[in-house]
Amino acid sequence: MRMDLPDIVRMLADDNLGSGRECNETPLPETYYKAFEEIDRDPNHELIVAELDGAVIGTLHLMFLPSISYQGGLRSQVESVRVDSKYQNRGIGSQLMNYALERASLRGAHLMQLTSHQSRRDAHRFYERLGFKLTHVGMKKNLK
Amino acid sequence: MRMDLPDIVRMLADDNLGSGRECNETPLPETYYKAFEEIDRDPNHELIVAELDGAVIGTLHLMFLPSISYQGGLRSQVESVRVDSKYQNRGIGSQLMNYALERASLRGAHLMQLTSHQSRRDAHRFYERLGFKLTHVGMKKNLK
Repeated sequence: MRMDLPDIVRMLADDNLGSGRECNETPLPETYYKAFEEIDRDPNHELIVAELDGAVIGTLHLMFLPSISYQGGLRSQVESVRVDSKYQNRGIGSQLMNYALERASLRGAHLMQLTSHQSRRDAHRFYERLGFKLTHVGMKKNLK
Repeated sequence: MRMDLPDIVRMLADDNLGSGRECNETPLPETYYKAFEEIDRDPNHELIVAELDGAVIGTLHLMFLPSISYQGGLRSQVESVRVDSKYQNRGIGSQLMNYALERASLRGAHLMQLTSHQSRRDAHRFYERLGFKLTHVGMKKNLK
């Protein structure tokens, strides 16, 4: 929900890599709300949060990507997986990911894919425990 | 265009990894056409082909992913990049990718991302020449 957006941005910014690229001010820059509206409108996107006692302590962006490959198979992809630093190592990330995997299976996706920065070795092990295989390289090019 | 779909599937199937997962029959299985219609309807997806003398000799699936991260920045992603095996090493892949990069910049995307199987070393070098950095790992989990 829109009211969760400041918590989502707080978690994205509270991170080695994220701290330099987010702008966690009050009020949030309007660009965050514009992106939220677009995600909220698009049935191929789900912005998921984990709550504990009414507080938002985890987030994950699940997306569905129609594709010609794999005989026109639907892919799912996750981005921006974060758990509040105060609540890490309690299985909340696994619960979030398992929820996303269930949603993806229900929707008929034949695979889930993600990329993770090479420096996040703990994250790779976390995803391997969930059944992900490290088969690909992830490449990015800045356009600005 | 819908009439290009058999050529796109032919190129996806003509590949070490793709041959086992596509079904390049005439007529194509209906699942390909259903996926095509969904992609065609969605303004965040562009299925691009390269043509030479009226023949389809390359393909690429460009997608735009709205995102909360990077201050609500729009991402672009490419999947299923293929050049007809008879026309490789003539710069057609670079032309396709540069066209996609231009489209992504025009649309305001702040980055382009892709994954490539670890075994495709030539492809990694190809993308590095285009300015992509190999900063991430790509992980996949089969759901079926």
